[in-house]
Amino acid sequence: MARAKFKVSVVAPASRMSLEVVDKVLAVAKRRYPESTPEIVFHPQCFASHGHFAGDDDTRAQALIDVANDESFDAVWFARGGYGSCRVAEAVVGRLTAAARRKTYVGYSDAGALLAALYKAGFTSVAHGPVAQDVLRDGGDAAVGRALAWMVERAPEALEPTVNGARKTAAFNITILSQLLGTPLQPDLAGHVLMLEEVSEAMYRIDRALFHITSNADIRKVAGIMLGRCSDITPNDPDFGMNEEEVARYWCRKSGIPWLGRADIGHDADNKIVPFGFPSALVT
Amino acid sequence: MARAKFKVSVVAPASRMSLEVVDKVLAVAKRRYPESTPEIVFHPQCFASHGHFAGDDDTRAQALIDVANDESFDAVWFARGGYGSCRVAEAVVGRLTAAARRKTYVGYSDAGALLAALYKAGFTSVAHGPVAQDVLRDGGDAAVGRALAWMVERAPEALEPTVNGARKTAAFNITILSQLLGTPLQPDLAGHVLMLEEVSEAMYRIDRALFHITSNADIRKVAGIMLGRCSDITPNDPDFGMNEEEVARYWCRKSGIPWLGRADIGHDADNKIVPFGFPSALVT
Repeated sequence: MARAKFKVSVVAPASRMSLEVVDKVLAVAKRRYPESTPEIVFHPQCFASHGHFAGDDDTRAQALIDVANDESFDAVWFARGGYGSCRVAEAVVGRLTAAARRKTYVGYSDAGALLAALYKAGFTSVAHGPVAQDVLRDGGDAAVGRALAWMVERAPEALEPTVNGARKTAAFNITILSQLLGTPLQPDLAGHVLMLEEVSEAMYRIDRALFHITSNADIRKVAGIMLGRCSDITPNDPDFGMNEEEVARYWCRKSGIPWLGRADIGHDADNKIVPFGFPSALVT
Repeated sequence: MARAKFKVSVVAPASRMSLEVVDKVLAVAKRRYPESTPEIVFHPQCFASHGHFAGDDDTRAQALIDVANDESFDAVWFARGGYGSCRVAEAVVGRLTAAARRKTYVGYSDAGALLAALYKAGFTSVAHGPVAQDVLRDGGDAAVGRALAWMVERAPEALEPTVNGARKTAAFNITILSQLLGTPLQPDLAGHVLMLEEVSEAMYRIDRALFHITSNADIRKVAGIMLGRCSDITPNDPDFGMNEEEVARYWCRKSGIPWLGRADIGHDADNKIVPFGFPSALVT
């Protein structure tokens, strides 16, 4: 059930958000919750520009710190992926307060660096799920509605279908998780079902990143790996000879990590919610 | 000075070598050493094909093990990069004998996974330098001649100019080193001058990989980082706003790793030799 005046802040710790996202997201929120519409506040930093990024590192970090530590917000929703979260994650998490710990955080792709850092710091309501910019996808209203449904009302139907509270879960873009391994941002995923997805990478890169991930001693403590969708795989010359599932199965077999099948996540409008740890709505 | 009957074996632990490489490399060897021409033996596995790779994992691993453990060879020269070394490196190194330890190994790019594994296993003559396939580059004769000059006669002029025996060195492709971090292949580079080069990556990927590398606690023990050439940088949308040297300086500053300037290595014909550890010819 939606709470009155649920407040979501949108910030962009990586790339700049498109301006057209605002009206579309607000329209989805209004349609989904006509009576108690959540208030969605887009931080001006979402539209800042500094080379590749939505503002320089200090600007992006400060915006995220400000909204996370602001008691009036219930959730922090990442505007989009792109690139840049790893540049600010460690500094941001070190400056968050108790108010920040009470919030829900939702995002994926590049935002995985922040999900990892927050989860590692003991935050209990961190989830892999659609970003605001997903509203621009075909079917993007459903993606954004799903993120809101999780943030606002912990709607069980927003969850990846295998998430049932029996086991801890976590989800990452393959390349992003790879780039966190061996850094202070690598979270403890022992006992977790680890769901992985990818977009716009060649097959040999997916294979190499899965070598990297499954060769990590701490990652080998996961309960198992589920593979989400790998979309827009770029050409491999010559043909790689294995598809993404064969590659994932190969590395699971080689590393001794249980292969647990496919997950309903990916860089698309069907991307479901995967809480980090136990889904609090189901276990409380 | 060239030894009589110096024997080099060429194997391809990653991608398939082009057939035309053979005659060109043999011609370079003959021109450079008309009297005591080193014998260069191309293992048939160089031309095998299995999807992306020069033969399946077992075929590539066995070829490398066979020539490394063969007393009659003085050096193992990697045919080329591409992708695939990480799939066999750990298994190969576990099966090498004392004969393998006496050999010189030269390669770069994807072969960095093997250089790392060999160096970690205590091999003392491992070097980052041109592969056989480099003969196909413009000016490739010089690259191949340089690799031979190092393998056959430890020619000091083959070395990257700052390598002087005063400090340990190591060199890697940025992406390849990134993909080894936190795996059993990550070598101890404490006290080393770490030289890094890149090819065909977008600026945001170079930045992300340098975040990854410089955020690793063990990598932070290096004596410093030198940046080789980053060639064929693919388009970044939007423009990244920093070039490769600015990015490398940024991450050095942020991580506390000393920035030591530019290195004369790269995916090109000018790629110089960088021994792993101390250059034995200079310290013995």
